[in-house]
Amino acid sequence: MDLPISQRRLWASLMEMASIGPGDSGGSCRLALSDEDRAGRDRFASWCRDAGCEVIADQVGNLFAKRRGRQSNLPPVVMGSHLDTQPSGGRFDGVFGVLAGLEVLRSLNDQGIDTLRPLELAVWTNEEGARFSPPMLGSGAFSGVFSQKQVLDTVSQDGARLGDELRRIGYAGSASTTDHPMTAYLEAHIEQGPVLEAEGLEIGVVTGAQGQRWFEVTVTGQEAHSGPTPMGMRRDALVTAARMVDAVYRLAMEIGGEACATVGILDVFPHSRNVVPGRVWFTVDLRHPDDLVLGRMESQFRACLAEQATLGGCGLDISPFWSFPATHFAPVLVDRVERAAGSFGFRHRRIVSGAGHDAVYVARRIPTAMIFIPCIDGISHNQSEAITAGDAGHGAAVLHAVALATANA
Amino acid sequence: MDLPISQRRLWASLMEMASIGPGDSGGSCRLALSDEDRAGRDRFASWCRDAGCEVIADQVGNLFAKRRGRQSNLPPVVMGSHLDTQPSGGRFDGVFGVLAGLEVLRSLNDQGIDTLRPLELAVWTNEEGARFSPPMLGSGAFSGVFSQKQVLDTVSQDGARLGDELRRIGYAGSASTTDHPMTAYLEAHIEQGPVLEAEGLEIGVVTGAQGQRWFEVTVTGQEAHSGPTPMGMRRDALVTAARMVDAVYRLAMEIGGEACATVGILDVFPHSRNVVPGRVWFTVDLRHPDDLVLGRMESQFRACLAEQATLGGCGLDISPFWSFPATHFAPVLVDRVERAAGSFGFRHRRIVSGAGHDAVYVARRIPTAMIFIPCIDGISHNQSEAITAGDAGHGAAVLHAVALATANA
Repeated sequence: MDLPISQRRLWASLMEMASIGPGDSGGSCRLALSDEDRAGRDRFASWCRDAGCEVIADQVGNLFAKRRGRQSNLPPVVMGSHLDTQPSGGRFDGVFGVLAGLEVLRSLNDQGIDTLRPLELAVWTNEEGARFSPPMLGSGAFSGVFSQKQVLDTVSQDGARLGDELRRIGYAGSASTTDHPMTAYLEAHIEQGPVLEAEGLEIGVVTGAQGQRWFEVTVTGQEAHSGPTPMGMRRDALVTAARMVDAVYRLAMEIGGEACATVGILDVFPHSRNVVPGRVWFTVDLRHPDDLVLGRMESQFRACLAEQATLGGCGLDISPFWSFPATHFAPVLVDRVERAAGSFGFRHRRIVSGAGHDAVYVARRIPTAMIFIPCIDGISHNQSEAITAGDAGHGAAVLHAVALATANA
Repeated sequence: MDLPISQRRLWASLMEMASIGPGDSGGSCRLALSDEDRAGRDRFASWCRDAGCEVIADQVGNLFAKRRGRQSNLPPVVMGSHLDTQPSGGRFDGVFGVLAGLEVLRSLNDQGIDTLRPLELAVWTNEEGARFSPPMLGSGAFSGVFSQKQVLDTVSQDGARLGDELRRIGYAGSASTTDHPMTAYLEAHIEQGPVLEAEGLEIGVVTGAQGQRWFEVTVTGQEAHSGPTPMGMRRDALVTAARMVDAVYRLAMEIGGEACATVGILDVFPHSRNVVPGRVWFTVDLRHPDDLVLGRMESQFRACLAEQATLGGCGLDISPFWSFPATHFAPVLVDRVERAAGSFGFRHRRIVSGAGHDAVYVARRIPTAMIFIPCIDGISHNQSEAITAGDAGHGAAVLHAVALATANA
């Protein structure tokens, strides 16, 4: 079947963007508001102007390339994602969504199609959170999660203020960040997980994003010399923490389905070969697409840990660190993605996004949908992140169909 | 019962030594061959000369204060320990053994006792291993574990060569390190563990030291994003390592008795809240007083870990890092310590040293025994390390009795 986009042109753009801030082993490094990010934004803006769009920046540096509609007073249908990367990032995380949107605009031009509503193509500032923490600052400012002042005053790991860096690279715009009407927001993205590839699918119809609850746990035992302290007299914080790690894993396995539980950081004190650990600090990341189930997971998690702490004679502190409610994308748009995938004959399934995306914040204000394409071995945030040109074309084709249908609805 | 030593004088010496290189919260800091160590050695030497002893240094800086015997050609009975401390060390680890020996010499002088064999009081260089690694370099050189060149060429964390530091502080002696005859070696020491205090005892009759086998373990799974990676598709190196930590603990509990197993360091990679750990590196310290049992522990440990690695779909590497055979002290001397403790009416038990001591190396060449006294809460290598003046006196009294009996035997 002929696709309504040029897979070859899309791939060439992806490769050209990847050459800006190249990583040392095949990936990309365009940290938010760095010189490389400026160069990436410059290239994006010049491509968009060549495609007949006006490009504006808002006050937190989000970029919007505007393509007129037949009724330009109607709120636009917005496609987009981000161009910043992790320090050892891949070439496709974020970039694919932006350049798939660009390919849609270029194809519409080629096809001489005018839409009823305007289309816009967004590049959100600092999605990765690698240079400026937390992540998704630009889309978070749009959706009201962060104030504009908070975003501009964010200081990077290298000591730079976001607002100053924005001015330095010439992308401190004057457009309002929050007063920006949109009819709908569509984001194409690599899955960043292994499911589509494992099931031999081409398109993920994203229904929403998992709710997340993050915790910090401190287990306090008794530091002791590993030689002269009999096993029966120990209160070993690491043994107790290890049982908690296992319990957290089993909890998610028992709940099943899309429940996820991860201990990603675990630090042992005093961190000496011959000292029984007196303290262990670890992080817990619980996720589920249903906030009710997630609440039950949290209760069970707390009970498991309390039980292990008691068994091990250890003190326990559980501090909530961050949480994020489950996101449900607009059913009308989700259905439209599903129909488009089907109409092209692409193998597809409904899927919940496990990762955060700009779309998750935007969805708090604007009807939103996402389109996933497979990424090889599920690897992301890594220079070896890879997709096929075919899958990229399929994702852009679905984006084309959904954007066109929505802009004309 | 009247003790053959002065508890008051011993305590005053301990407090005076503690004032040399005082810690910032009540402990001591006399890193090996630092200016503070020099000041401690100077004080020791002047005390010994005042007690009528000749003080010599050997080529690795071990000090020996010599008290003549009636037959000064007989090999001496040597008491001793070390004066160097951890950076945040206590006031008694090592120091107690040296100054208990000094108190024995002073008391023999007061009592006008001449022994058949000479007595010597040893201060071993760099027992702690805090500034120069590995520990017990001075006694290790004496016993042939390390060559003299190896010891002198050891470079500290601060970049100083041991031999140069020895010259700088004036303790590079000319006496042979290895050609040093001894009849017996006796070391009094704080237990550095909780057993004596927990059992309400005053003296530990040390029968030897645990064999030790140290390992480094690497568990390799698959790094993955914590959101989009379903639990069933994960190979989480930390979950697998956590089960290994638990298995290692259970193994020592099942063997029981004096078996000890400790995971003191565990590092998680890539160490990010929302990344499933792809690799975990941890240390294992196995100890048992019987090398045969220790060998069985190692086999079971390897089997447990292999089983968990297979279950978790993870790679496993186990590298031996260091090992130390079990030490058995001279039965004649151990019996003599036990009889002395009994004759004073001190509550005592036989105990195996879990920690390394100079005596453990010396025992490879010379009939050796150790005398433990309780330390409060078993705390050591910490500025809050504490003993009672009464327990110190009891330990010195036993040392007096055993040294006298051995020097006259």
